[in-house]
Amino acid sequence: MHAPGDVRVEDRDEPTIVEATDAVVRVTAACICGSDLWPYRGVVPLHGPTPMGHEYVGVVEQVGDAVREIRVGDHVVGSFVASDNTCEICRAGYQSRCVEHVMMTTIGTQAERTRVPLADGTLVRLPGEPDADLLPALLAASDVLGTGWFAADAAHAGPGRTVAVVGDGAVGLSAVLAARHLGAERVVVSSRHPDRQALARELGATDVLAERGDAFVARVKELTGGYGAHGVVEAVGTEESMWQAIGSARPGGHVGYVGVTHGVTLDGLRLFMSGVHLHGGPAPVRRYLPELVDLVWQRAIDPGKVFDLTLPLEKAAEGYRAMDERRATKVLLTP
Amino acid sequence: MHAPGDVRVEDRDEPTIVEATDAVVRVTAACICGSDLWPYRGVVPLHGPTPMGHEYVGVVEQVGDAVREIRVGDHVVGSFVASDNTCEICRAGYQSRCVEHVMMTTIGTQAERTRVPLADGTLVRLPGEPDADLLPALLAASDVLGTGWFAADAAHAGPGRTVAVVGDGAVGLSAVLAARHLGAERVVVSSRHPDRQALARELGATDVLAERGDAFVARVKELTGGYGAHGVVEAVGTEESMWQAIGSARPGGHVGYVGVTHGVTLDGLRLFMSGVHLHGGPAPVRRYLPELVDLVWQRAIDPGKVFDLTLPLEKAAEGYRAMDERRATKVLLTP
Repeated sequence: MHAPGDVRVEDRDEPTIVEATDAVVRVTAACICGSDLWPYRGVVPLHGPTPMGHEYVGVVEQVGDAVREIRVGDHVVGSFVASDNTCEICRAGYQSRCVEHVMMTTIGTQAERTRVPLADGTLVRLPGEPDADLLPALLAASDVLGTGWFAADAAHAGPGRTVAVVGDGAVGLSAVLAARHLGAERVVVSSRHPDRQALARELGATDVLAERGDAFVARVKELTGGYGAHGVVEAVGTEESMWQAIGSARPGGHVGYVGVTHGVTLDGLRLFMSGVHLHGGPAPVRRYLPELVDLVWQRAIDPGKVFDLTLPLEKAAEGYRAMDERRATKVLLTP
Repeated sequence: MHAPGDVRVEDRDEPTIVEATDAVVRVTAACICGSDLWPYRGVVPLHGPTPMGHEYVGVVEQVGDAVREIRVGDHVVGSFVASDNTCEICRAGYQSRCVEHVMMTTIGTQAERTRVPLADGTLVRLPGEPDADLLPALLAASDVLGTGWFAADAAHAGPGRTVAVVGDGAVGLSAVLAARHLGAERVVVSSRHPDRQALARELGATDVLAERGDAFVARVKELTGGYGAHGVVEAVGTEESMWQAIGSARPGGHVGYVGVTHGVTLDGLRLFMSGVHLHGGPAPVRRYLPELVDLVWQRAIDPGKVFDLTLPLEKAAEGYRAMDERRATKVLLTP
């Protein structure tokens, strides 16, 4: 990305092993993330031409001398954060905040090849070469599914619970799938787009509401005996969506928020009086990745449905335009 | 309280049974809460003369027709919120947000007698008449101890964990006691008052730090291998104290905040990037009250130490002055 709205596919130097813990991965599928739209729209500043992309499925082509587990030829998937998976923070399940973490955004995976730091901690080996039709689902596990899963987990989705989901983007839809998989009895999602409403139902939503803000909160309370939802996922990241989420939860309920909150400020007293548990941040996708890969491999879940446009890598600019103009929910790029 | 700084002890009408679920309790001990200082200092507006107080230990003198469990003559303690203890919110342990809840602040317990709504749900019966020396500890259970306990619980205090406590008032000190009782290995508290430092150590603090803000955060990280505390209690309620608490927790750590947050706003992105669990609000003291009464009765804990001034009720105005001027941490009033 050279500037807001200016995405170009160019030849760059081949990635190489920089640290002994690195791997070089040939990317078989990458994609465009909602968060890639922040610089595209000029909301987050760019400092010169920037490699893009942080999600990937691929094949290991080289490994550094200190890589012990991952081997050349392995089919792998990784999350958007490279992590050692051995420090105290990783072991507690917060690999996205590993003391050694490297954001894949600083390297870029919308490419034919990418360097993956901390390969042994970061990469999850697939059982073999994935069938082509599994690629979208595996790629989803790399970020949006893992993020939605984390949010649903933070919302304490489980048997007997009602979970509300604020946001019908790829993460919100993944959270619907996750909440149902985790056993939630009722999953209520806010959506106005007919396609996304249909997909939300397909992924397990029991109630799709067109209302937003206070009207959504009122409907969720109506559906839950006046109490509010047990858990709520926030997957938008605006001030309105945060309060919609917090307001939809009952006192003592759990709000998992994963929308990146640009320019949001929260009134402390209002938050205090809500009495909710609030947990979120950059999702520790690596925590869930082995389980998610397994579920996808067994075809028990199909999070790949969130991709509604596939383009060859060289048409990346068209993919950004489609997502920016909301013609696509999520775009898969094939190098 | 007639106006900020204007506290008077006056004769008022005797309380009576209003609802069939009410009890009338003769108050044997009441006290002044840090939150009573908000209107005293003019931070929260008063709408005419207002009865004050929401903590109490006493003896039941009358019960309404619908009261089944509580009997005339019972020695009782209750929390600062009356609750039915039967609704779905109460049963989940959030009695302070009971669908029928009544704030005792609207009734006033700094009095010879008080009306207690929802008596069966609100009051916890003592095993008998308490020894006089147990009154302070039982009264502490009514609010500050229960609030500190909730905060330590929300901070996931437990074996092997380091818990930091921001605030050395009665709630912060109670949280120190709670964190240790819940098994925390290390309890780090921020305090600059020599008396409170000594009391914090007596209640179980392992480390007392004079630093505040970023300097406190840096010291906590030093003490925890650079990671930050597993759990943090926030018991002040300012923006600085909130960030001090959030900053002291490791990613994925738990922050229990119980300082009433007047005029605090939180930057959403900063909160997001902290990766902490945040939980707080008006403490559901009733959840913990039976256990706390039991611990006090067995003299396993002595939270009564947070009271450092006892006055007869008619000298309430002097008690307010002493707390306002920080000459006292917490004032017990005996009717």
